[in-house]
Amino acid sequence: MELARTIEAVRESVKTARREGKQVGLVPTMGALHVGHEALIRRAVDECGFVVVSIFVNPTQFGPGEDFENYPRPIQADLTICRDAGVDLVFNPTPEVMYGQENLTWVTVEKLTEPLCGRFRPVHFRGVTTVCTKLFNIVLPDVAYFGQKDAQQAIVIKRMVADLKMPLRIVVCPTVREPDGLAVSSRNQYLSPEQRRQATKIYKALQKSRELVDAGQTDARQVVAQMRSILEQIPKAQIEYVSIVDAETLDELDTIAGRILVAVAVKLGPARLIDNIVIEA
Amino acid sequence: MELARTIEAVRESVKTARREGKQVGLVPTMGALHVGHEALIRRAVDECGFVVVSIFVNPTQFGPGEDFENYPRPIQADLTICRDAGVDLVFNPTPEVMYGQENLTWVTVEKLTEPLCGRFRPVHFRGVTTVCTKLFNIVLPDVAYFGQKDAQQAIVIKRMVADLKMPLRIVVCPTVREPDGLAVSSRNQYLSPEQRRQATKIYKALQKSRELVDAGQTDARQVVAQMRSILEQIPKAQIEYVSIVDAETLDELDTIAGRILVAVAVKLGPARLIDNIVIEA
Repeated sequence: MELARTIEAVRESVKTARREGKQVGLVPTMGALHVGHEALIRRAVDECGFVVVSIFVNPTQFGPGEDFENYPRPIQADLTICRDAGVDLVFNPTPEVMYGQENLTWVTVEKLTEPLCGRFRPVHFRGVTTVCTKLFNIVLPDVAYFGQKDAQQAIVIKRMVADLKMPLRIVVCPTVREPDGLAVSSRNQYLSPEQRRQATKIYKALQKSRELVDAGQTDARQVVAQMRSILEQIPKAQIEYVSIVDAETLDELDTIAGRILVAVAVKLGPARLIDNIVIEA
Repeated sequence: MELARTIEAVRESVKTARREGKQVGLVPTMGALHVGHEALIRRAVDECGFVVVSIFVNPTQFGPGEDFENYPRPIQADLTICRDAGVDLVFNPTPEVMYGQENLTWVTVEKLTEPLCGRFRPVHFRGVTTVCTKLFNIVLPDVAYFGQKDAQQAIVIKRMVADLKMPLRIVVCPTVREPDGLAVSSRNQYLSPEQRRQATKIYKALQKSRELVDAGQTDARQVVAQMRSILEQIPKAQIEYVSIVDAETLDELDTIAGRILVAVAVKLGPARLIDNIVIEA
């Protein structure tokens, strides 16, 4: 496995792989790799002859007061995971490589970035779309892999790729969960043992929404209210949002119909946790 | 010469050219091709084995009340010029192909888009950078060619390419002028014979700035004042700006030093004319 720190090194290796007729897959990550990332990497290794994992804690997707400084950076463990998973190239650039002295150019997606996490993290998606554009331009992958856990991110990225005619395909992989249902996240390690136990209520609330919808409930407010009553049992949790939206447009729904996304964001101590499920109503 | 109207057709042809080991050059245009465009095309044909000219009057770079509807679209004449110049592929998409039902994604460059034309055309550069990103992603050229006449555009595009790590090189070609000095532009055809005669004062004002700087004048306001007194002799002209800026940062200069851009925009009847020169002071 190769470890590249410069754009030129990545381009050189990818060019060689291409000359050998290999499909190129990219898994963009911020490191602190967990079994969720491993599922993305495994899928990439299955589908592509040359797999690149980028590990870059992207400063521009963190707002002021968010956890950029404290975000875990266990690079040696990450490299081991990549090596064991059959990754060909890890790209681990510095902020200087990605942003130079001063970055003036931004990629923004309107509308889809406004609801859900966009309301609470105003610069987040601009940072995500901009860094992904750079990574796509550096690696020029045929396919890039994202997780369904960050549902809004996946929708925003897909729209960006379609609108800007980027020459790649986006694959979204299912959320990986702990045995008790909690969605796997690098931020789960911020939780105390007690918070970690309480955090399972997030998935319980999502499961409740599926039950209600399956039982014929079509009033979104009723479903949200029942989900909130579960989440409010978590001591000291701040519920940012509990939303039922169209799974494609992210428009808030009053009446549940079609393919819906049920999404939750909760602040629990030092961790901001998000999770979601898609239901065909 | 091939005429492509779809993204798929362009990608297919470019892929074939690449397989043959050819360098790919792109000349992005809005059509109404003139000798200025021909110079760009000639340079591309000299340097690249496969030359693509895009012809697309890009709606998003025109503001309300600008000349989008009236912009000339002599497609048959344009195709003849391309054929005669040795172009391999003309890409002439519809707005639907480029923007779909609804475009939500934009590429923006801060700071460099604020002065000069940016002050008078607030959505213009966002439209240019967004459409160029799409064209670059569709054609994936090794080189793209722009004219120095649109000096700010060239600087903005170069910055976008650098910031977003786009895998291509930007070449900026010198402004082509009529025998009397007027910069060649598709918009010159909007001028009446009398306006056309008066329009030569734009280049005269730029030449005056060079004279003054060469003679040792370092006070930008003095130079601008003398240029304005020439431009004010054009009956009914509206001077949008006469600016002396750093040729790289586009920062307004009080004291002339280093590599400077002297830039002018004048509205003359139905035409908005821009021109500029670079001086090493």
